[in-house]
Amino acid sequence: MLGASGYAGRELLKLLVAHPRAGVTLATSQSEAGAPLAKIARGAPVVDLRRIEEVDPGECDLVFSCLPHGESARWVERCRERGARVIDLSSDLRVPEKGFAGEGEEALYGLPELHRERLRGADLIANPGCYPTAALLALAPLLRRGWIRSGAVIIDAASGVTGAGRSPKRELLYAEVAEEYLAYAVGNRHRHLSEMRDQVRRHARGVEPELVFTPHLLPVRRGILETIYVPVVEAALEETLRPWREDFSGEPFVELVEDGMPTLGQVVGTNRVAIGATVASGTRDPLLIVIASIDNLLKGAAGQAVQNMNLMFGWEETMGLPC
Amino acid sequence: MLGASGYAGRELLKLLVAHPRAGVTLATSQSEAGAPLAKIARGAPVVDLRRIEEVDPGECDLVFSCLPHGESARWVERCRERGARVIDLSSDLRVPEKGFAGEGEEALYGLPELHRERLRGADLIANPGCYPTAALLALAPLLRRGWIRSGAVIIDAASGVTGAGRSPKRELLYAEVAEEYLAYAVGNRHRHLSEMRDQVRRHARGVEPELVFTPHLLPVRRGILETIYVPVVEAALEETLRPWREDFSGEPFVELVEDGMPTLGQVVGTNRVAIGATVASGTRDPLLIVIASIDNLLKGAAGQAVQNMNLMFGWEETMGLPC
Amino acid sequence: MLGASGYAGRELLKLLVAHPRAGVTLATSQSEAGAPLAKIARGAPVVDLRRIEEVDPGECDLVFSCLPHGESARWVERCRERGARVIDLSSDLRVPEKGFAGEGEEALYGLPELHRERLRGADLIANPGCYPTAALLALAPLLRRGWIRSGAVIIDAASGVTGAGRSPKRELLYAEVAEEYLAYAVGNRHRHLSEMRDQVRRHARGVEPELVFTPHLLPVRRGILETIYVPVVEAALEETLRPWREDFSGEPFVELVEDGMPTLGQVVGTNRVAIGATVASGTRDPLLIVIASIDNLLKGAAGQAVQNMNLMFGWEETMGLPC
Amino acid sequence: MLGASGYAGRELLKLLVAHPRAGVTLATSQSEAGAPLAKIARGAPVVDLRRIEEVDPGECDLVFSCLPHGESARWVERCRERGARVIDLSSDLRVPEKGFAGEGEEALYGLPELHRERLRGADLIANPGCYPTAALLALAPLLRRGWIRSGAVIIDAASGVTGAGRSPKRELLYAEVAEEYLAYAVGNRHRHLSEMRDQVRRHARGVEPELVFTPHLLPVRRGILETIYVPVVEAALEETLRPWREDFSGEPFVELVEDGMPTLGQVVGTNRVAIGATVASGTRDPLLIVIASIDNLLKGAAGQAVQNMNLMFGWEETMGLPC
Repeated sequence: MLGASGYAGRELLKLLVAHPRAGVTLATSQSEAGAPLAKIARGAPVVDLRRIEEVDPGECDLVFSCLPHGESARWVERCRERGARVIDLSSDLRVPEKGFAGEGEEALYGLPELHRERLRGADLIANPGCYPTAALLALAPLLRRGWIRSGAVIIDAASGVTGAGRSPKRELLYAEVAEEYLAYAVGNRHRHLSEMRDQVRRHARGVEPELVFTPHLLPVRRGILETIYVPVVEAALEETLRPWREDFSGEPFVELVEDGMPTLGQVVGTNRVAIGATVASGTRDPLLIVIASIDNLLKGAAGQAVQNMNLMFGWEETMGLPC
Repeated sequence: MLGASGYAGRELLKLLVAHPRAGVTLATSQSEAGAPLAKIARGAPVVDLRRIEEVDPGECDLVFSCLPHGESARWVERCRERGARVIDLSSDLRVPEKGFAGEGEEALYGLPELHRERLRGADLIANPGCYPTAALLALAPLLRRGWIRSGAVIIDAASGVTGAGRSPKRELLYAEVAEEYLAYAVGNRHRHLSEMRDQVRRHARGVEPELVFTPHLLPVRRGILETIYVPVVEAALEETLRPWREDFSGEPFVELVEDGMPTLGQVVGTNRVAIGATVASGTRDPLLIVIASIDNLLKGAAGQAVQNMNLMFGWEETMGLPC
Repeated sequence: MLGASGYAGRELLKLLVAHPRAGVTLATSQSEAGAPLAKIARGAPVVDLRRIEEVDPGECDLVFSCLPHGESARWVERCRERGARVIDLSSDLRVPEKGFAGEGEEALYGLPELHRERLRGADLIANPGCYPTAALLALAPLLRRGWIRSGAVIIDAASGVTGAGRSPKRELLYAEVAEEYLAYAVGNRHRHLSEMRDQVRRHARGVEPELVFTPHLLPVRRGILETIYVPVVEAALEETLRPWREDFSGEPFVELVEDGMPTLGQVVGTNRVAIGATVASGTRDPLLIVIASIDNLLKGAAGQAVQNMNLMFGWEETMGLPC
Repeated sequence: MLGASGYAGRELLKLLVAHPRAGVTLATSQSEAGAPLAKIARGAPVVDLRRIEEVDPGECDLVFSCLPHGESARWVERCRERGARVIDLSSDLRVPEKGFAGEGEEALYGLPELHRERLRGADLIANPGCYPTAALLALAPLLRRGWIRSGAVIIDAASGVTGAGRSPKRELLYAEVAEEYLAYAVGNRHRHLSEMRDQVRRHARGVEPELVFTPHLLPVRRGILETIYVPVVEAALEETLRPWREDFSGEPFVELVEDGMPTLGQVVGTNRVAIGATVASGTRDPLLIVIASIDNLLKGAAGQAVQNMNLMFGWEETMGLPC
């Protein structure tokens, strides 16, 4: 495992240590090299965190990369050369134009609820971003049915601070974040947007919707909640949750909220996505409001990575994951 | 002052006690009757909180009502009969269909930045709601110019918990709110919507826009931030903040944010509204994203009430208010 | 299970639903009677919460009482008459003078690390209070060795808000608790004190120490941290953690902190107690500072209750408990 | 003003900008040099923050130093050489052995409630530390009366995160501090201890008490609350608050809490110290529990510095300070 000291890396390490089938062989961290793994995850094997230059990925059947965006791709490539399967949690390989696609091997986009069959036995998986995971699970059932009218789909999202990483930055200090709330990358300037657009394009039938995405920083540690405004055709108004109920029937990690709307707290600590939908009253053209929430470190990162690992190795998909 | 023990009432009492010209004669509270006023606001006159049935509003030049929605109107009527001028912080008189308008006296809508001239010397003012205050200051300059295209204006808003009042409710306990975030009244079901619609109608030139309003509960004590998605005409794209700069030039409580976007923290503790705007890139039809933030207890309630009092009595508008 | 809607009750229900051996037959709640159990704990059996008057405890092998202090004892008595074994999480039976001891059956004090042998196969267990659990695990090794000098042992403690219960009270609202910190029951006025004193008396060798206990309310949801000042004999200074290492060797839920001191966050979500100790420099008579932290809802309530259940039924003590 | 970008510096700048008599001429910041002063404090003069090497302290009548401990002394010395009076908020000059005392000028310890007369018209003041300010105001009335018995005075204190400064450190990130609570420098290892001891020595009559000081980090932004355990003589038990009432009669910034105990929230945002006291019941030798709370950035730093400035220049002591 590469990059074990960030929030996603630490969460992944804890899941792997407690996983019934997987075991951790080695883990790297530039900032905490030399510290024992057990400092991060109780019960971890008695090995130390190492510097990435010193490890041979060929020792592992599977390598998780939790390296920063921009740095991950080249290490993934090296792991593949040495024969290791890879799940990359960075954004480097999620969009075809980026990464070594074209000249190299294409990574599969690892959102099991949408692409399960392709992921079984895969060798290289790009683990989805946290914001896209919630947005795509909220939108795919409408996209597939061609039920989205032309116009902008507005994704108004809010995330806890672990989404911004564990590097010390002044704007992430407790005294700056507590009692604060703000929007960032306003006006479609967030790097997750191209990932969302690429996936929306793949699932859309008919009109390909325009996306407007505004993330906000919440004074909480974990969790993402997205309030999504979707211009829809009349058909979408009848029984608002039906598309998700049909498409996600039997999905262990999808929770449809019939009574009320999803909240952040109901998914934090789990690998679930919670989805609810309601019609906005009083508009001439129909507008559906869909709300989806996930734990950004689980379904939005480490949990989904373990779900992908389970698919890769043919294990039960929920193994080692908090439901 | 009627209803001094809620969050808005307490804030108002503190402002009045420190105000250079105003003085507090009497204050009521059903839940804390008998307690000394100084328990709420240091330096208050040495009188006790009384039950509303026991006070004569005729003793006061001006009565502020911080009574709950639905209860305020009849007490306001009684105050007017006894000759007292009134500023009503409840929602009872904000929309003409409601309250005793029609048969009685119409209250003036007390948003000074939009209606200043009418408010000077007024006898009866309906103090605007917190969500409408931010929304209307964000939208008025576009409405007046007829720069909003047809389609839905989406007001995605988030408020601190003091907006939900000080009565003990399980869902407002610390253990329920911390690390939580949720939407409520989703689908245009919030009572502030009719107030917003009524005011939008009064300011709109040309197309009257549809509003979609989704409030969220934030794990902070104070503050409202609204992220507003406005379909606009091309003219609005040139210099995004110009309409506000022109309309609010010299306004002591309007802060235009040129560099970045408003945050919650920058207005909490002040009577200001902070406004920013930017264009969403990558949409076919132009969409402007306007963000406005206020302190819900100051510009959204008690601060604005004092601003209205200053106008009523011909005092300097900023007197006794934190800038 | 009696009283499933409070914070301890809900936590216990979740543990029981996920427990490999136990199953939930019925649960009561006065405030939420009629609601499905699954509303509290995902995966719970499909039964509804019932009113306590309507259930027959004789249906159960074991009854957990999470009823309020003062109400629990009589229901426990009834359960025992109907033949059910009982673990009582209230304070009613923890001190011999109280409850029906004397005329009735004496409950065993369920702190496994101190009384394990007596608890195996027990029929009636008084589950310790949250503050006493941390304090007694911190003090017992010193008490048993007679290493505490005469004088006051000062227990300065801080707890998250779930310790104060889930009933709506104004002083527990988010807006009151956030950014606040305060002491309560100052001057030895907390009801947990008699429980601590009774247990300290049982473990003390030689001098029986005086206790001074000051609880504080922390703006966090869960967790207790106690900073305890202990006047000790010289022998205690040599290797500060040795008494705990010797007494708690092999204990699955005791974590000794060698490097630094225990924090709240390191135990929240687990059934562990973390203990650290250091000598205060610069005092004439030796003073040891012992810090202990637990999750008040797990080791301080529901987790310890499950640990006691495991002992009662001869199951592995850690079964179903987060380590 | 030297060092304007830390939390204390920013608070001080805001107070000075709003002060009726003082004006800000120049301010330095190494990390934000070049930024306009108004970025920190609305209404500040239109000047930029400068690097400390580029300014001439001789331009100012008074220089506040908010430089880090260890760096401040040499700049203070330079300011004095250039003829400027100085208030130093660092710890460099608070204890005689340190700083340039001996060879240089001795700084006066700027706790007005204890040393007011010496501070009027002073040229060089060492502004007290935040923890010592609360502790000394809590202890001085007992010390002066010789009412403290031999034995340890235990100061169990908790502070909000702004006390730890504004430099980005991982352990101060929101995700690390929220829902956390911990003790640090346990065992009398905090640098404020020597300052407390030195001042206690100066005020003690008879026995000089031993201090044991344990600071904790609270998940709040501002405020310090200290719970102090004092072994006292019998005389102290009669009317517990009398010593403070007598000594601090008429003090504008001392609030004695008769009913209940001081809380953090009641002083945050003010320059007050709140003090309460009660007797611990059930101990053989009398023990008084004194609780004191302050806002660490106001009475604990910037507010007290302004109070000292007011004394230096003969202005009203409360001028420009929130009561």
